[in-house]
Amino acid sequence: MRVLGVDPGLTRCGVGVVDGGIGQPLRLVAVGVIRTPVDDDPAQRLFALQTELEQWVERHQPDAVAVERVFAKANIKGIMGTAQASAVPMLAAARRGLPLAMHTPSEVKAAVTGNGRADKAQVTSMVTRILRLDVAPKPADAADALALAICHVWRGGAQDRLAQAVARQRAGVRR
Amino acid sequence: MRVLGVDPGLTRCGVGVVDGGIGQPLRLVAVGVIRTPVDDDPAQRLFALQTELEQWVERHQPDAVAVERVFAKANIKGIMGTAQASAVPMLAAARRGLPLAMHTPSEVKAAVTGNGRADKAQVTSMVTRILRLDVAPKPADAADALALAICHVWRGGAQDRLAQAVARQRAGVRR
Repeated sequence: MRVLGVDPGLTRCGVGVVDGGIGQPLRLVAVGVIRTPVDDDPAQRLFALQTELEQWVERHQPDAVAVERVFAKANIKGIMGTAQASAVPMLAAARRGLPLAMHTPSEVKAAVTGNGRADKAQVTSMVTRILRLDVAPKPADAADALALAICHVWRGGAQDRLAQAVARQRAGVRR
Repeated sequence: MRVLGVDPGLTRCGVGVVDGGIGQPLRLVAVGVIRTPVDDDPAQRLFALQTELEQWVERHQPDAVAVERVFAKANIKGIMGTAQASAVPMLAAARRGLPLAMHTPSEVKAAVTGNGRADKAQVTSMVTRILRLDVAPKPADAADALALAICHVWRGGAQDRLAQAVARQRAGVRR
């Protein structure tokens, strides 16, 4: 299973691709950050983000897309751009019929570090260990995108196992 | 000048196309609402909105796109979907190199009714009069989209006249 994780943003959009499955080690495929110029028109920035993200999807052909769920918190101005940016991977997934999941930051932190309140350094450190990388992925947006993809493989896997268990039990009941 | 006005939303997205220019009457070209099912996945809804909005753009070939600027206010949950929906006309315009403007609700109300705090009934009533329609456009989202397009023609026209005046003055200074 190949997962594309996207930490949406107009200034820096983290992108990470991970291969993996339940009971097998995860593998880094690619990681990076898509940047768009702060001085550009918001619509131009969205379009530039879309153009680059589409290239990532075409190049790596993921089986699923995981996007960080955006919350309206302190920075209301920034949140609008982030919400608009999150539409880009959502559209990319829907256009191809790829399954898409939105994970909250605390779900991602809990999945990767065991602590839903872990800080950025802890997330980066665990991502580096889980993927057995020689160098920690930078910037934090890139590490977050990988953490999203890892979270998705593990949560998706758990859901699959649950579904399999339910299916097995139903099959048992019918017998 | 043909303007496509878009009042973004996932449940109801108002769309209105108006022809016009400074010193000539405005003309309704088309008006409608794009709806997506509330029970569908948000990414599916965004994609369905994009598919329909692209058809509007292809069919009517606007010279400019005007989108309502989304603000984070009371309904934080709804605002995320609206912000993501607003990415769709922004991408449609940027992809084609069409000028795009974001107008706030009070700018639109002020342009159309002379009162930045006008209510929906007043906006609909003025849109109906300005476009000399026999029947008021419904629902309110459709009337809002037309109001956006009207606002854009008039504000754009004023900016153009200012730019022309500045250009004329500069030309005069050089002589």
